[in-house]
Amino acid sequence: MTVTVAVSGASGYAGGELLRLLLAHPEVEVGALTAASSAGTPLGQHHPQLVPLADRVLADTTPEALAGHDVVFLALPHGHSAELAGRLGPDVLVIDLGADHRLTSAADWQRWYGGDHAGSWPYGLPELPGARERLRGATRVAVPGCFPTVGSLALAPALAAGLVEPDVTIVAVTGTSGAGRSLKPHLLGSEVMGSASAYGVGGAHRHTPELAQNLGAVASTPVSVSFTPVLAPMPRGILATATAPTDSTVDTVRAAYEKFYAGEPFVHLLPEGGWPTTAATLGANTVQLQVTVDADARRLVAVAAIDNLTKGTAGGAVQCLNLALGLPEATGLPTVGVAP
Amino acid sequence: MTVTVAVSGASGYAGGELLRLLLAHPEVEVGALTAASSAGTPLGQHHPQLVPLADRVLADTTPEALAGHDVVFLALPHGHSAELAGRLGPDVLVIDLGADHRLTSAADWQRWYGGDHAGSWPYGLPELPGARERLRGATRVAVPGCFPTVGSLALAPALAAGLVEPDVTIVAVTGTSGAGRSLKPHLLGSEVMGSASAYGVGGAHRHTPELAQNLGAVASTPVSVSFTPVLAPMPRGILATATAPTDSTVDTVRAAYEKFYAGEPFVHLLPEGGWPTTAATLGANTVQLQVTVDADARRLVAVAAIDNLTKGTAGGAVQCLNLALGLPEATGLPTVGVAP
Amino acid sequence: MTVTVAVSGASGYAGGELLRLLLAHPEVEVGALTAASSAGTPLGQHHPQLVPLADRVLADTTPEALAGHDVVFLALPHGHSAELAGRLGPDVLVIDLGADHRLTSAADWQRWYGGDHAGSWPYGLPELPGARERLRGATRVAVPGCFPTVGSLALAPALAAGLVEPDVTIVAVTGTSGAGRSLKPHLLGSEVMGSASAYGVGGAHRHTPELAQNLGAVASTPVSVSFTPVLAPMPRGILATATAPTDSTVDTVRAAYEKFYAGEPFVHLLPEGGWPTTAATLGANTVQLQVTVDADARRLVAVAAIDNLTKGTAGGAVQCLNLALGLPEATGLPTVGVAP
Amino acid sequence: MTVTVAVSGASGYAGGELLRLLLAHPEVEVGALTAASSAGTPLGQHHPQLVPLADRVLADTTPEALAGHDVVFLALPHGHSAELAGRLGPDVLVIDLGADHRLTSAADWQRWYGGDHAGSWPYGLPELPGARERLRGATRVAVPGCFPTVGSLALAPALAAGLVEPDVTIVAVTGTSGAGRSLKPHLLGSEVMGSASAYGVGGAHRHTPELAQNLGAVASTPVSVSFTPVLAPMPRGILATATAPTDSTVDTVRAAYEKFYAGEPFVHLLPEGGWPTTAATLGANTVQLQVTVDADARRLVAVAAIDNLTKGTAGGAVQCLNLALGLPEATGLPTVGVAP
Repeated sequence: MTVTVAVSGASGYAGGELLRLLLAHPEVEVGALTAASSAGTPLGQHHPQLVPLADRVLADTTPEALAGHDVVFLALPHGHSAELAGRLGPDVLVIDLGADHRLTSAADWQRWYGGDHAGSWPYGLPELPGARERLRGATRVAVPGCFPTVGSLALAPALAAGLVEPDVTIVAVTGTSGAGRSLKPHLLGSEVMGSASAYGVGGAHRHTPELAQNLGAVASTPVSVSFTPVLAPMPRGILATATAPTDSTVDTVRAAYEKFYAGEPFVHLLPEGGWPTTAATLGANTVQLQVTVDADARRLVAVAAIDNLTKGTAGGAVQCLNLALGLPEATGLPTVGVAP
Repeated sequence: MTVTVAVSGASGYAGGELLRLLLAHPEVEVGALTAASSAGTPLGQHHPQLVPLADRVLADTTPEALAGHDVVFLALPHGHSAELAGRLGPDVLVIDLGADHRLTSAADWQRWYGGDHAGSWPYGLPELPGARERLRGATRVAVPGCFPTVGSLALAPALAAGLVEPDVTIVAVTGTSGAGRSLKPHLLGSEVMGSASAYGVGGAHRHTPELAQNLGAVASTPVSVSFTPVLAPMPRGILATATAPTDSTVDTVRAAYEKFYAGEPFVHLLPEGGWPTTAATLGANTVQLQVTVDADARRLVAVAAIDNLTKGTAGGAVQCLNLALGLPEATGLPTVGVAP
Repeated sequence: MTVTVAVSGASGYAGGELLRLLLAHPEVEVGALTAASSAGTPLGQHHPQLVPLADRVLADTTPEALAGHDVVFLALPHGHSAELAGRLGPDVLVIDLGADHRLTSAADWQRWYGGDHAGSWPYGLPELPGARERLRGATRVAVPGCFPTVGSLALAPALAAGLVEPDVTIVAVTGTSGAGRSLKPHLLGSEVMGSASAYGVGGAHRHTPELAQNLGAVASTPVSVSFTPVLAPMPRGILATATAPTDSTVDTVRAAYEKFYAGEPFVHLLPEGGWPTTAATLGANTVQLQVTVDADARRLVAVAAIDNLTKGTAGGAVQCLNLALGLPEATGLPTVGVAP
Repeated sequence: MTVTVAVSGASGYAGGELLRLLLAHPEVEVGALTAASSAGTPLGQHHPQLVPLADRVLADTTPEALAGHDVVFLALPHGHSAELAGRLGPDVLVIDLGADHRLTSAADWQRWYGGDHAGSWPYGLPELPGARERLRGATRVAVPGCFPTVGSLALAPALAAGLVEPDVTIVAVTGTSGAGRSLKPHLLGSEVMGSASAYGVGGAHRHTPELAQNLGAVASTPVSVSFTPVLAPMPRGILATATAPTDSTVDTVRAAYEKFYAGEPFVHLLPEGGWPTTAATLGANTVQLQVTVDADARRLVAVAAIDNLTKGTAGGAVQCLNLALGLPEATGLPTVGVAP
């Protein structure tokens, strides 16, 4: 079985990482590559690391360019996916790395993104309860945001088991590639290196309602989410520190996490005493995870690390492709990070 | 007025930063420099940046070497200060950058550090209520830990005004120099760069009781503190994200912060919309601070940045020297960071 | 004596560093601050580290805004200085951090920059033979480029003493701030961190003719210069590795360097066995330097480190201000770097 | 065909990278893992990224532990390989990542390393003339040093074609992992980040004679090599800038490089105008290369980038394994870097 795959937004960071993974996927043949302002230029100019595709010229992102493939990945700014997807035919597997189809609540969409809600698609975080089943055979998939991926996985076992109160705080340290290839002064190397800074503070980041949606579904009750992203001087990686009030012991909590993630191919609960580093996940589809209880503060503290471009975006998308097509879920996906 | 100053632990990072500041201090003459295993070697070998002192040879850290100065700074591992200080005479100003005399509770000392409690000294965080008065004319000063400095200043105004519940979470991203010049694998450049990692999770870090002590004193009630430090790939800087439940509005909160820090020479509350970066504090004794309220999550979120070696250690120590000696508090202390 | 100083290009990296130094200069009062597209915005928005000037609003860069000051610094793109300077009056000290008046050869100007040559001004590298005398009392000063500063100082003693052949190779590793606050993809943190890359290879960098001009003047004969800059993941700093054929011994070479730089306040020839690090120069006006001879390869190898924004730009400019005004040359200039 | 492979030195950086690649190699089964001081501990403690091997316990490095495998990789400090190899049997494929068997000259060995020369093995840089043939079917392979790999490939085409004089200068910027997991102060993150520094200056680095050996063989004449390594703040990657006097044109030079590397699976000569970045090679076995001529300085300038741990060490070793075993040379080796 070989499927042909088109990638829109190929000149961006998510697109580049997706192509890196697709080139190593045994069942995939890379087809059309499209872009917006970079259309007409060779891919090698934007992604020198993609040597086998260096001479491929980017096409304009149009339904015509993307048509005729078994699978189409959309790595576009939000608001661009719905119309494109509508013109691709119901049998094409469309996997959206953007935000358009993640939120189930139209009110949430309008508050956080504005404009008409395009509706929701099966949500591509297979490790959440029920998600894997909805993804098998799906023809439309909404890949989660990078922070909702790591934040949801950090707390899901505790909320599912009712071990914590539904009032969580998440501070997530992120590398800069999460912001994409945006030409903004605060993303320049000169300003990023040697510096840490918070942004979207006070619940202003658009991943907040997505976190609340995921955690609320797992907990079967609304969950209050205080979320703060912190930009750190590294190209990739997210380290989320998530806490919630608990009366449970560390043994109870740990047992719940072990059970929740038993058999998961991409979630690595570290041995006791070990704590995650983002470096260990670089380029891998792996989540590294640890959890403990602070008895003095009466809080569960979970720490989870991912590569924001791999498990947090493109790797998660390929995992969904595998599920949707009925392939073994781990096909073509690295679990070993590039470290040090 | 010129005072002679001896520095023990001169080969370490705290000692080096202290010497950088002392060289620029108009009322200070640098005297004896001492070290442990580096005794007998020239300072320039350990601190090539300290050009004017490059040829000074480090002496052994003994009472004799430190005697005969007006001021002695102790930048030693915990447990070494009490005995040394006892042999320096009551009129010598002794400023301890270590932990020995920070905690007022002997029980806390024994739990977190072990061994006999050496008693507490006036606590060197002048911005806390009452602290400045206790530091004026003092002959013994305990310089705060780097995390307690930034974490306490981030939340003090809210706790003092009773605007938040006494149940706080602090996640503080730190540069590596806070760990000192320790030869441990996880501090190697190869493992630090490109990586973020949490440590001392679940209330295990020794700065937790110091944070609780400070915040409890400000709040006049015990404060539950969930504290997680996160190591980030930068040499210096701490960015603390501190949250606590609140029913206040952002206007009320902001007014409280403005009032609390009015006239403080080293606390810079940013204009609305601006958020701190650690880069802006590099090498300066400045705290950059912002605060908001997340109405959905019903939480106050304060973010504060410092240079861990300057305001967080050596700069704070010089600020205390100024107060203890009756000099203008800002003498010799930079407020402008080296950025980008 | 207090002089009033205006700074154009205040929103850029060179302008920001200049203001950091001027705020600490005892004889300077900071006057007008001007910018191009940032005019009308507060300085704190661009330089959060400049706390004392945070609320100063940037004016448009016009002769009128800059008039009425004793000193005007121009930190502008090349091609903008000549006309402005012409309208500032002959008694105003104008210090140009740009390239317009560095090259003495009109042919070189036209080849490397294009357009009319504005003529040359006294060249602001006081450590070169004869330069200091020309700078004393000057009313126009051309501050050198960052690479010519470090490259010229690395090789001048050897060329002046005739110890090497006039055929040099220089590879200079630089931090990203040398490129200014330019919004270009290859300067984004995501692309800079974890990566090294050469640019301007093959003699294409505009600092090549300036290096040749300086070294040729020192050697009293034309010098062939192979210059390659390498971008490294750090905000500041240049480390230049400069080689030239020699038949001299290391003792002869070292003696020549010691003699050449005897008494220089800002050149620190390291003790034998020590090699420069850029970190030791961060924020300081210091050059750290070492030299040896590779007898097998019959080459002198000199390695020099500076902070590109301090000694390489703004610090060098303040050093020139001191000389031009007859102040002690080191007034207000730090020699101690911020390390680690 | 599946071969069993043992890895000594598995707890180091070279060993870790080797295991990452071997886990992805379709014809390899990972057998014994050995170490020195880390024997008895689980691999996951040293290499958290190697999730599938996290629980494997390291054995002592003894001939017994390594026996019984088809292939043994030695990733040991120099001086340890000869005796071990002698006890492994002539049919076992022994691939030495250390220096013991790289130099053909006993005099060079004694001068640069000291002690008895163990003799030389087939040299594992298949892209050099004649090397590939000697590696096919070999049972002993000496993997090149990281700097000799990139430096030799940067200049080989020019020297082979007689386009440059045999008098080369190489300045190679390297990430810190090349120094291994050594607990030395100058390798601490605090000292590495934000800093560049040269070391082994003046021909003192042990890779100098290896470079001279390779380049001399290619040129069929002795080559004078001035080599300076520069440590930069990145975990991985080497960017070598190599120059040599030439009278050739850029077209002639480029044609020679294209011809020399035609069909090479791991050498990517960039299109004209493109220059290598180390980021594009992260985790890949690829060399990115560009060359030009500086007509003013009469010098060829070649710039080459590799990942020091992949093509520069472990990837090169796996490439040799493929050749020695008669597998397709690129089996299991990634050519796409993890970027940004």
